[in-house]
Amino acid sequence: MDPHLPEPQPLLALVDALKALPGVGVRTARRMAYHLLQHDPKAAQTLARALEESLTGLQHCERCNGFSETQICVTCANEQRDTSILCVVETPADQNSIESTHNYRGLYYVLMGRIAPLEGMGAEQMNLARLIDRATNGEVQEVILATNFTAEGDTTAHYLGEALRQKGLKVTRIARGVPSGSEIEYVDAGTVAWALLERKET
Amino acid sequence: MDPHLPEPQPLLALVDALKALPGVGVRTARRMAYHLLQHDPKAAQTLARALEESLTGLQHCERCNGFSETQICVTCANEQRDTSILCVVETPADQNSIESTHNYRGLYYVLMGRIAPLEGMGAEQMNLARLIDRATNGEVQEVILATNFTAEGDTTAHYLGEALRQKGLKVTRIARGVPSGSEIEYVDAGTVAWALLERKET
Repeated sequence: MDPHLPEPQPLLALVDALKALPGVGVRTARRMAYHLLQHDPKAAQTLARALEESLTGLQHCERCNGFSETQICVTCANEQRDTSILCVVETPADQNSIESTHNYRGLYYVLMGRIAPLEGMGAEQMNLARLIDRATNGEVQEVILATNFTAEGDTTAHYLGEALRQKGLKVTRIARGVPSGSEIEYVDAGTVAWALLERKET
Repeated sequence: MDPHLPEPQPLLALVDALKALPGVGVRTARRMAYHLLQHDPKAAQTLARALEESLTGLQHCERCNGFSETQICVTCANEQRDTSILCVVETPADQNSIESTHNYRGLYYVLMGRIAPLEGMGAEQMNLARLIDRATNGEVQEVILATNFTAEGDTTAHYLGEALRQKGLKVTRIARGVPSGSEIEYVDAGTVAWALLERKET
């Protein structure tokens, strides 16, 4: 920020704080600050309170590692779920995607990240012992690896697969291929190559 | 949000609160919430505090209507500014742009909006009496209208110009034309038309 601009300190602090949000630069942060203060102070108040309450009210579920208000989250505590299947995802957003299919009745483990050595996120940082403990509780028969099909997601899946198979678990990976409803002509060559490679007998 | 997803309430509230930010939809809000809670709880704390402090610590400057920690803002209180010129801008961001030229030594009046009948923002909502009072304090000789060159900004400038001229003030408008450093070939036709229309004898 231009040091010559005599802006009030609380405003500068607010713009700086908004810049910490992913994808928000200084211009967007200023627009947000102006909008909140001038046109929607109630939303600013609500946001401040929601942040405080999330920070104090949320913890990691003891079983799945996702965000939860309670020691055990609602999904893990749901007795109607199939405890013999465990689906490993990178983030809560990925879990939401899978839940929204209404097609999966097993449980989850949320990594809250992925192995990304370039970002200083090695296998050690991820506390994979917790996942191994969770998967070897005697109930889990199959672990579905649903990490992303990116370099990091694939590395993570590979690493987890090795470790879990050593424990005698059945390990599967969600299918990689041409998206449902899309025309092959318009799908990128890498995806088509994978779809060919991972073709199935019908 | 999908009602089937058993997400913890504080997280849902945080995502909703983030959605109030301009340009933020539900996907971005979720990404922001996840980022803050998982990777940067300190930034979440800082943002909550910055919001609170801005809400309690900022007021509108009695003279220029901009945000200020004090009754009179730093710019208005600066005795080295030229009190005979008043520049009218729509937002604090516009004021920043003009300040960053280091070429203007007069004072400001920040409208905190513009006349936009379609958004229910008429001349009455803008409390223009305050601006008229400010401009007719006996010291101001010239009012520079620096609202945007949009339909709303032009309307606002036109309306303010009429009202201020009636009070016997000299009223000017910043120049509209081809941007400095740009090639006419690549400038939109509307701008070129204005540049022709507002040509000056040299």
